[in-house]
Formats: sequence, C-alpha cells, structure tokens
Amino acid sequence: MSEKIPYKIYLEESEMPDSWYNVRADMKNKPAPLLNPGTHQPMTAEELEAVFCKELVAQELDNENRFIPIPQEIRDFYKMYRPSPLVRAYCLEEKLQTPAKIYYKFEGNNTSGSHKLNSAIAQAYYAKNQGLKGVTTETGAGQWGTALAMACGYLGLDCKVFMVKVSYEQKPFRREVMRTYGASVTPSPSDTTEVGRKILAEFPDTTGSLGCAISEAVEVAVSNPGYRYVLGSVLNQVLLHQSIIGLETKAALDKYGIKPDMIIGCAGGGSNLGGLISPFMGAKLRGEADYRIIAVEPASCPSFTRGVYAYDFCDTGMVCPLAKMYTLGSGFIPAPNHAGGLRYHGMSPILSQLYDDGLMEAVAVPQTSVFEAAEQFARVEGILPAPESSHAIKVAIDEAMKCKETGEEKTIVFGLTGTGYFDMVAYEKFHDGKMDDYIPTDEELQKYFATLPKMD
Amino acid sequence: MSEKIPYKIYLEESEMPDSWYNVRADMKNKPAPLLNPGTHQPMTAEELEAVFCKELVAQELDNENRFIPIPQEIRDFYKMYRPSPLVRAYCLEEKLQTPAKIYYKFEGNNTSGSHKLNSAIAQAYYAKNQGLKGVTTETGAGQWGTALAMACGYLGLDCKVFMVKVSYEQKPFRREVMRTYGASVTPSPSDTTEVGRKILAEFPDTTGSLGCAISEAVEVAVSNPGYRYVLGSVLNQVLLHQSIIGLETKAALDKYGIKPDMIIGCAGGGSNLGGLISPFMGAKLRGEADYRIIAVEPASCPSFTRGVYAYDFCDTGMVCPLAKMYTLGSGFIPAPNHAGGLRYHGMSPILSQLYDDGLMEAVAVPQTSVFEAAEQFARVEGILPAPESSHAIKVAIDEAMKCKETGEEKTIVFGLTGTGYFDMVAYEKFHDGKMDDYIPTDEELQKYFATLPKMD
Repeated sequence: MSEKIPYKIYLEESEMPDSWYNVRADMKNKPAPLLNPGTHQPMTAEELEAVFCKELVAQELDNENRFIPIPQEIRDFYKMYRPSPLVRAYCLEEKLQTPAKIYYKFEGNNTSGSHKLNSAIAQAYYAKNQGLKGVTTETGAGQWGTALAMACGYLGLDCKVFMVKVSYEQKPFRREVMRTYGASVTPSPSDTTEVGRKILAEFPDTTGSLGCAISEAVEVAVSNPGYRYVLGSVLNQVLLHQSIIGLETKAALDKYGIKPDMIIGCAGGGSNLGGLISPFMGAKLRGEADYRIIAVEPASCPSFTRGVYAYDFCDTGMVCPLAKMYTLGSGFIPAPNHAGGLRYHGMSPILSQLYDDGLMEAVAVPQTSVFEAAEQFARVEGILPAPESSHAIKVAIDEAMKCKETGEEKTIVFGLTGTGYFDMVAYEKFHDGKMDDYIPTDEELQKYFATLPKMD
Repeated sequence: MSEKIPYKIYLEESEMPDSWYNVRADMKNKPAPLLNPGTHQPMTAEELEAVFCKELVAQELDNENRFIPIPQEIRDFYKMYRPSPLVRAYCLEEKLQTPAKIYYKFEGNNTSGSHKLNSAIAQAYYAKNQGLKGVTTETGAGQWGTALAMACGYLGLDCKVFMVKVSYEQKPFRREVMRTYGASVTPSPSDTTEVGRKILAEFPDTTGSLGCAISEAVEVAVSNPGYRYVLGSVLNQVLLHQSIIGLETKAALDKYGIKPDMIIGCAGGGSNLGGLISPFMGAKLRGEADYRIIAVEPASCPSFTRGVYAYDFCDTGMVCPLAKMYTLGSGFIPAPNHAGGLRYHGMSPILSQLYDDGLMEAVAVPQTSVFEAAEQFARVEGILPAPESSHAIKVAIDEAMKCKETGEEKTIVFGLTGTGYFDMVAYEKFHDGKMDDYIPTDEELQKYFATLPKMD
C-alpha cells in the first residue's frame, strides 16, 4: 500500500481471468428457475434450446460450478479491448475535497461504448460454434445492439436487431454504427412479425418497448431455421459473462492491496452490476469479506425499490419463459422523458434473489440529478459518461460527500459502464432545462402489477 | 523479440515521456519563419505575444532545444488518458492474410475522441498560467474544439469556439459535447465579428471554412483583454505537444525491439503526423535509423501532392502571420461532399520543409476508398475510426497488401488518431452510396493559387 497508486491500473494481458465467475455456486438460496409460461413448470434444457444456443442453456442452468472456462477464441477477442482500466478518480476526489478514495472500472473503451460487448462476443461465439447462421435480438438505447453487431461482424454471423421505435428514430447514429458492422436494424414494433402486427393493431401509436422488441426477436429466432435469440441482460448467462468486469476489478484491487468499503453499480436488467459484484459477492457469501453493495436505478423505472418480487413475463408478447424477479409488470414503459437505458420492467433473477436475501441495497435516483453528476464527472475526469453509468456516478458522489462530512476515508468502487457519445440529445435537453423527473405514481404501478401472471 | 507481443502495448505511467521532442533541433533546413503580413518581416516574439500566450510563443520560435520539459500539471492531466496503447493489429493481419506486421498508435480513448487533447491541455495550461481569462479558437469537424473545451473545463478557463457553419449544423452533438464542458460555440462566419460580417456581406450563402473561423477567433482574442488565440494544428508548438504520440510509440516499439519499416499518418494541418514522426524523423535526420514516412491526405484537399510550397495566409481574413508551407491558397474550400477534417488549405511549415527536402512521401486517396478501409478495419479491429484516421488505415492496408504480393514481412506503424462516433452522417452517406469522390480540377486550383500573397 505504500506504493503510489497510478491513475489507471491496467492488468497485463497475462493477468486476465481465464474463467468466468458463477456467483450462483456461492448462493445458498439459488435464483428461482425460469418457468414454462403455459405449464408453469421449470423450463427444461430441451425447451430452452429451441430459443437459445445449447452451450448458453447449459450456462443458464448451471448453479453449481463456480468457475466456467472462457474459450480461447473469446479470450483473444477480449484482448482487443481488455483488460479495461480500473481508474483512481484522483481529479474527482480533489474536486469534491473528500477523504474518500474513489475507483471506477471503465468499460467504455471499445467501439460499442459499453460493457455489453463482454457478453455479446460470448453469445455470438457459441452461436457460431453451434453452426448457426445468425442471431436475433432487441435493443433499446442501442448499446447491446451495437455490441452484438460488432461481435457478429467479427465472426461473420448474421445479426437481426429489433430496436425500440423511439430509439430508432431518436438515435439514427446508433443504427448507422450497427449497419457499419453489417447488422440489419428494424424499428419495433414492426409489421414483420405476428406479435408486432398484433401490438400495432392494439396500440397503433406506440413508441415501442424493450418487452415488445424481445417478443419480435424471439418470434423471428424460433421461426427461422439456423437462428437463435440472444439477450443482453437479465439472464444468468449474461451475468456470468459480465463477471469478467468484477474479476478484473478484484485482481486490480488485490494487486495494490486495496479493500473496498462499498461497490456501486447502475442496474437496469442487472448485467453490469451482476458482473461487477460477482466475485465480491462470492467472497461475501463465503464470509471472507464484507462491504456494502449498492444497486442504483432510475426513479422513473424503479424495479428494485418499488417493484414486487414475483414471477412475471420477460416480454410484452408473453412468449418468453416466466422469471421470478423484482418487476414493475411486463406492460410497464418508462415515461417518454426517460433518457438512455435502464428501462426494462424486470431485474436479473440472481440479483433479485440476492436483494431479497438482504445481501445488497438499492437506491433510486431522479434523472436530473444523474445528469448533474454526469456533467460534474465529465469536467474533471475527462470521460463523457453514458446516462446509465451516471446513475452509479451520482451515488458514488453522494457517498463521497458523506465521507467529507464524517471524515471517513472510505474506499468506493463503482462501475462506469460506458460512454455517452450517442446520448447527446439527452444532454441537450439537460442543458436546455427541458429534462423532467417524472416518477410513476403508486396508482400507475398498481395497474401494471395487475398484469402479473396468476401463479398457483 | 522472442517474447510474444501483446495485442496492446501499454507503457507504465512511469515510462511516460517527461519532455516533448522538438524535431526542429535535428533539422538542417529549419522551417521558414512566420512573417508579418504587412511588412513581410519575420514575426518577433513581441508581435506574436499579442495573439498567442507567451510561453507558447517561446516554443513556437525554439529551433534549437531538442527536449522541452512537460510541466508536471500537464503530465498529471495526460495520465487521465495516457499512455495510449500501441496496438498490434493481429486481427487485421489475419483478415488480410498478409505477412506484414501492423501496429497502430490509438489516440481515440479519451472523450474528445482524438489526439487533439495532447495540445489542447498544453495550450490551456500556459494560458491559465499566464493569468488569462480565456482562449478563442476555431473548429471544423469538431475534434479540436471538443478537446479544447475539455481542457478549459478542467482548468476553469473560458473557451470561445468558432465552428465552421456547415459542421455546426450537421454535427449538433459535437456542439453539445462542447457545451457539456462549458464552452460557448458560435457558427462561423457570424455577425459577432467584423471579419465575419465582411465575409457574410460578400458571400451571404457561405457554409464557412476553417480559414474564416480562424479569422474570427483571432479577432475576438486580440480585441478582448485577457484572451489569446489557440490553434489545433499547423503551428510548430502544436507539433511539439503532439510529439508525445511519437515518443510513446517509439518507447513501446523499443521495449519489444520492433523496428518499423514505414510510418504512416493522415495529414490535414499536420499535427498528428508531425507528432507521431518527430522522434523517428529525428533519428532519421541524425542517420541513426531509416524508414519510409508517408503522409496521407484526401484527394479532395491535396496540399502536399498538388499544392505549392510558398508563403501564404493562414486564414481567409488575412489577419494572421504568413507561413511558408505547402498550400492550396487561403481561399480554398473542399467540395461540400468532403467528410470529416483534413480540410485545411495549408500544411505545417515543419512538415512542408521535411517534405520539400525529400525526407518523407505523400499520397492522396479518394474518399470512398477511405470509408471502405474504415469499415473493413472496424469489423476486425473493433474500433470505429474517424474519417481522418481512416486515411492512414487505407494506405496501411495498401502497403500490407503489397507485402502479401511480395511476401515481405514489413513492419507498418500508423497513427489511429481518433474515433468516428460523431461522423455517422458520413458513414450513412457511404452506406447509402451517396458519397462521391470529387477532386478539384487543375483550373480550380490555379484560381486559388492566384490568391497567394506577392512576395519580394
């Protein structure tokens, strides 16, 4: 610890993890299984393989193996942009005049601009390995679609993206990046699928939602031979792939003997937070270490803090398996003013179980305060953060300011998931004072809760 | 050399250069001095200090000192995003099936998205140090303006940017990033300056040019106490600051015993290429090493390959000093279809002298071929390159393909100056087949050459 800690801790390529970390192996209470939406029985591997790649199904169902080897081809791809830096936020600390020590794991230094690439390349690899022609998916703010387009472009796989219509229209550049990588992008809901046509007939003016785009992508996957559906968050397999974030973070901290007091991450479907905390939560579950773990979500889409823990549909069209999770109801759509991602109605079953077991905290923050934190951070740390990532920044700053009051030299680690280059419309609204902090009322939420499936 | 070369060579922070490299110290034929546009006599330090910061004037005029120390504050800022990686393009080599070994120095991993930040922080630092209130500048594609806004935001300096009108309108997101960092951005020509009003009166429909925006920025700097003008390219001081790129590149290559056969960089005003090659050119001038050095410019703005080597105005309003350089004439504006930067009519006096002395080569490439190379690169190397940087990619690929024909295992090093996140309109044109390769005719160029100042 006497050694001066550099601004950026880079691991050597040789120090990169060679296995992902499966936190389910450490959990006493395992996440609840996915259920068949018709029979309400746990989905079998065979049933899941109609939708997902075989190897990914095995990962999805594996609650036992703590380490799952990363295939060499994926490790080679990771080397194009990993290890990612763990940054000591010296400039932010100085600006805040806080005794806290702040670190962030920066996942934005790749063209997809976010951590999503960690799972995209894994899912595309297994699809390719299985001899498939291509994959389908949905994207909202566009980070996941971009990452998958990159991974598929690299491996020569076809990639069909259903992009939430409002984002498709507001983010033409995101669409263009996906095209650069050879993906086809369709605004959702579309008339190219049965479920899309049904939703359009019922709600002709809808601007789309993630749940609806998922339904369309799944329909195309199951009705086209040689295609499977892939998902960028929520699923156990995705958190598994994202554990590379946490493993590198832990290795970098250990290298300098740094012990975190709290770990903070933004949470939409849970892919970043779940990945970041996996090995830390494992150590906590085994009683080897202790720290606060804080999920930060938008007040406009508060699944942890105001949702219910129940089985729910993963998609609007109700064609996907049921997942037990903190949810706002599959019909929930954030208010139009909600910027960026973190707009999914549910939350990773793994994180939901951990939260329900009291192993982590959650806090919801209003949008304007998030952009204030983003701008403050950008000006001193030089990185223009994505709106999603800025939720974690907001709470990291809040905690650092508490340390300033108490004089405690706490060590704060947060996940900086990506960059905001494609979110300038939202920044413009913020600069022009046109951003609002609309929060759903209890009555509105009750209406969505009423759509939850009736379980026995 | 037996050691396996990693995908990305990162220097340690402790290995970062502590001085810039001033290649003028090695040049037998020094670059020609800037001249007073009225008297045609060399500009004195005193004259220059009316426009530029004092310390920067000293750097501008220093033809003798090979190493100029980097102040600690600037080195600390550099640590936020430097050392930048030198990447071995294994994936591109594999795709091309070339025996060539390709390396690129990637300068895009900072929020300004390009190498411009290296000089922006230096210039802002010296302005701050001199007790100034703020700085003015011009920006075209927006990389320089963004970098300067970041540097000024960090140091708390006021930053007034004149942005070429066509870019201001086509790139609202660039503008918004600058606002995020607290800069004011005015479309140029504007009615806020005398020179702007004059140009608007003469050419009411003009979409603006860099030369015109420079005139406006200089006018505001000299007529507002506490302000100075700063420039992102062309000047000796800028190449000096950018030598950090070349020094790091050389250190990384030396670390693994790699000897380049050729060094390739895109060239607009020359800041990136000049910085990248500085220490290499120094060694070449001293006879310690030899390699090809190749400047790549757009066929639509071909100052090296079709310009004349002569004293010319640096700006449209003819208020700046005269510089001896390869130039297309200060009235030259690339065709509207020209995408991205590399649109300045002149070229760095240092590089002009080196080119005239036969110490480097230049090649001009058509736009569509540049975007083809960009897309090919993006799909295998995972980085979405800026149009400017893609000029270097294009020629690096061409050279690698020559190696494939001859079987030679040449080592190619090129500068990847930045990312293309804000250039998706140009990518869209390319995808939609709406990009053309307009090249100025000889008659057009002759018309601009006629505007060169008459020298004795």
